[in-house]
Amino acid sequence: MSEVIANMSMSLDGFIADANDGIEHVFGWYGSGDVTVPTAVEWATFRVSEASAGVIRHGQATIGALIGGRRLFDLTGGWGGTHPMGVPVFIVTHTEPTDWPHPDAPFTFVTDGIESAVAQAKAAAGDRNVAVASPTIVRQCLDAGLLDAVQVDLVPVVLGKGIPFFGELAKSPVRLSDPTIVQGEGVTHLTYRVQR
Amino acid sequence: MSEVIANMSMSLDGFIADANDGIEHVFGWYGSGDVTVPTAVEWATFRVSEASAGVIRHGQATIGALIGGRRLFDLTGGWGGTHPMGVPVFIVTHTEPTDWPHPDAPFTFVTDGIESAVAQAKAAAGDRNVAVASPTIVRQCLDAGLLDAVQVDLVPVVLGKGIPFFGELAKSPVRLSDPTIVQGEGVTHLTYRVQR
Repeated sequence: MSEVIANMSMSLDGFIADANDGIEHVFGWYGSGDVTVPTAVEWATFRVSEASAGVIRHGQATIGALIGGRRLFDLTGGWGGTHPMGVPVFIVTHTEPTDWPHPDAPFTFVTDGIESAVAQAKAAAGDRNVAVASPTIVRQCLDAGLLDAVQVDLVPVVLGKGIPFFGELAKSPVRLSDPTIVQGEGVTHLTYRVQR
Repeated sequence: MSEVIANMSMSLDGFIADANDGIEHVFGWYGSGDVTVPTAVEWATFRVSEASAGVIRHGQATIGALIGGRRLFDLTGGWGGTHPMGVPVFIVTHTEPTDWPHPDAPFTFVTDGIESAVAQAKAAAGDRNVAVASPTIVRQCLDAGLLDAVQVDLVPVVLGKGIPFFGELAKSPVRLSDPTIVQGEGVTHLTYRVQR
């Protein structure tokens, strides 16, 4: 059955980017190994450990849609119209962009909230999973009880400050299962079930 | 050779206590299992998984002194004069307490800074290790380059807010090794080397 899974790279102290949106440290593991993993775009070919390659390939095989926030969309320039995962993308936003240069790309701008975004993404994903890749959207999913699992790619670095993966929640604490663990190079992949 | 090791229980989002200093969630794993591990005090007998028991016993066998901050000391009432680890304790503080009711307990109040506290604790520990168990002191050790390793007892809970393990550092990022991992029940023990 289709599940909603938060997935981001995170420093040991809980940040997905440094205070200037820098992802050099938390994304370093995507280039730390010998195994090449192509994506849907030429500008993002990963070179990772065999263990991490397995995790990425599993994601590629099982993720059918992606939800992101407007800030991530703007920061990445909408991934040039194709997300590396090669799946339909749903951007939660207050207003649709007026200058989006890729009108034919599989991007949907959802202006009526997180429940709607999750419903639309699940419909697009079919029996595959929905990945959530923006901290504000993860927070909204947790607060609305919409998240089934959290995959943290935990990076052995302490940033001291930055953009938190989780941030302040409306309902806390959120209890998780014990994780399944895959150790890569420069990253520990931890997958938790959200306890309802 | 004696090493300086930060060790605390931490939520997945990086907090060692909730916003009210509550440790119910991050310390839950100390009572989650069937294996009894006595400590130096009657009021703290742990009941943990066999995996976690091994981690705790290893700590009991290898830790020879402990450094804490004044806030932790005050919060715990100085552990009644005996820390569960049963080792000499060095409290980093601006001023010695005037009403400490256990003058004969192996507690030393260090008023001349973190380097002095680490030096005194190492001398007391001999060839055993020094554990650091307060976030402000961990931060001072990291900033001064005094920390050899970080053991995070990572608890599968998201608190949303609270007291951070690391907090803002003078010098960041701090790079760590990949961790050694022991999975317990309700806790993942991750031990990292600090890269200098």
